[in-house]
Amino acid sequence: MEFDFDRETAVVREGAGLYTAEISDRWNIFTVPNGGYLLSVVLDAVGRSIPHPDPIAVSAHFMSRVTPGPAEIRVEVVRTGRAHSTATAVFSQEGERRFHTTATHGDLSTAAGATKVLGARPAIPPPENCIRGEGGMASEFVKHFDVRLTQETAAWALDRPSGAGVMEGWIRFVDDRPHDTRSLAVITDAFPPAVFNLMETGWVPTLELTFHVRARPAPGWLQCRFRTQFVMNGYLEEDGEIWDEAGTLVAMSRQLARVG
Amino acid sequence: MEFDFDRETAVVREGAGLYTAEISDRWNIFTVPNGGYLLSVVLDAVGRSIPHPDPIAVSAHFMSRVTPGPAEIRVEVVRTGRAHSTATAVFSQEGERRFHTTATHGDLSTAAGATKVLGARPAIPPPENCIRGEGGMASEFVKHFDVRLTQETAAWALDRPSGAGVMEGWIRFVDDRPHDTRSLAVITDAFPPAVFNLMETGWVPTLELTFHVRARPAPGWLQCRFRTQFVMNGYLEEDGEIWDEAGTLVAMSRQLARVG
Repeated sequence: MEFDFDRETAVVREGAGLYTAEISDRWNIFTVPNGGYLLSVVLDAVGRSIPHPDPIAVSAHFMSRVTPGPAEIRVEVVRTGRAHSTATAVFSQEGERRFHTTATHGDLSTAAGATKVLGARPAIPPPENCIRGEGGMASEFVKHFDVRLTQETAAWALDRPSGAGVMEGWIRFVDDRPHDTRSLAVITDAFPPAVFNLMETGWVPTLELTFHVRARPAPGWLQCRFRTQFVMNGYLEEDGEIWDEAGTLVAMSRQLARVG
Repeated sequence: MEFDFDRETAVVREGAGLYTAEISDRWNIFTVPNGGYLLSVVLDAVGRSIPHPDPIAVSAHFMSRVTPGPAEIRVEVVRTGRAHSTATAVFSQEGERRFHTTATHGDLSTAAGATKVLGARPAIPPPENCIRGEGGMASEFVKHFDVRLTQETAAWALDRPSGAGVMEGWIRFVDDRPHDTRSLAVITDAFPPAVFNLMETGWVPTLELTFHVRARPAPGWLQCRFRTQFVMNGYLEEDGEIWDEAGTLVAMSRQLARVG
């Protein structure tokens, strides 16, 4: 396979509904595999099990920490309908269930119906006028991406959190892999947590992550905006919008995570 | 049981992880039981199976239409941890799986950690200055609630959609049942669809609904704001915020739905 993402998210079919994967340490945030990377692996298994091509609603509940190494994914196709199919996927390591995913797939190439768009892609400076993310200690994961943050939202990295709870900018794979509806999964969790612009905090583990894919992405950069408005008793939401270069909203995400 | 909600969302335990319920037709929207009502039933079964008291992240994928009448709910506790537990629940009728729920529970009475709130409860007129929802043909469901819509967002009912994609106002049970973290499930799906303020449409079936409970609600009215910004090829998101009378954000919801 030509691209890192495809090579390192590929599963092996072992039997009906049973897949194995080797979780790479090259998508770690510090020592822990990134949640969006793990979801991309699971969606490879789901994609091989289900007739519809595009994940359109994917919900994952993360129960315990995943480690790099072998993993088992059990996919159960719950229903296959005309327009949509739904499957569940249980991701286990060493016999312990680590996270649980439900995915509803459809076909966005033939989706038809009413269209009315009120929201617009936020006006931010082009990638060349943004600040390139270096990743620092989280560098294994970040090495796969060219990430550009707006000046304001990169402020946390200079110990000047913006106070706005927003992280935004541009992203693409460094090896120029074009995005598709599956690879959007990793983008929903690829930016530094927006809470970094609100407070000093350590690891921000995700408890639950849901994303909706709204269109197949055009080639080129993706523009992203992640926002945290409510940190309450150590729980926070992070809402994401992902736009393609053509100005189309391609995905929305929301996660519930813990701080400190 | 004193209140309609508790009586009509109660399940019966039939064995390990197996519950039955009688789905009432008194929570119908037209002829179909409301999705938030169905989730409340499922959460009764989950709550009887799991040690932690509060649903904090609940994701449901709706696969086929539920009808009033007998139903079976199979709960599997996937993991029980110190702070959180996670369970899945499969809701079936006549041997067919109709929707699939994953619920992560915690204990919001003891949740502790960082707090920083940027968002504020929207300033809207008090309930007595809002317009009481009558329900019309959807009246079975609406009879359980006192719903008050702001003048602007009630405009759709007078055939003058506001164009803003927002539906907001106040809600409480007509029998004054106090809200708890489980009953918030029904509120996430209790207002007229926000898309009614964007276009004329028929039934708006939910494909996926996730909500996060952020605090136990104080007694009294709940203030709600539901918003749809992107209707694309017949798919739309509806984002909800639910606040209690004390001004605390108690839940956030998002659903992916289809329009005509």
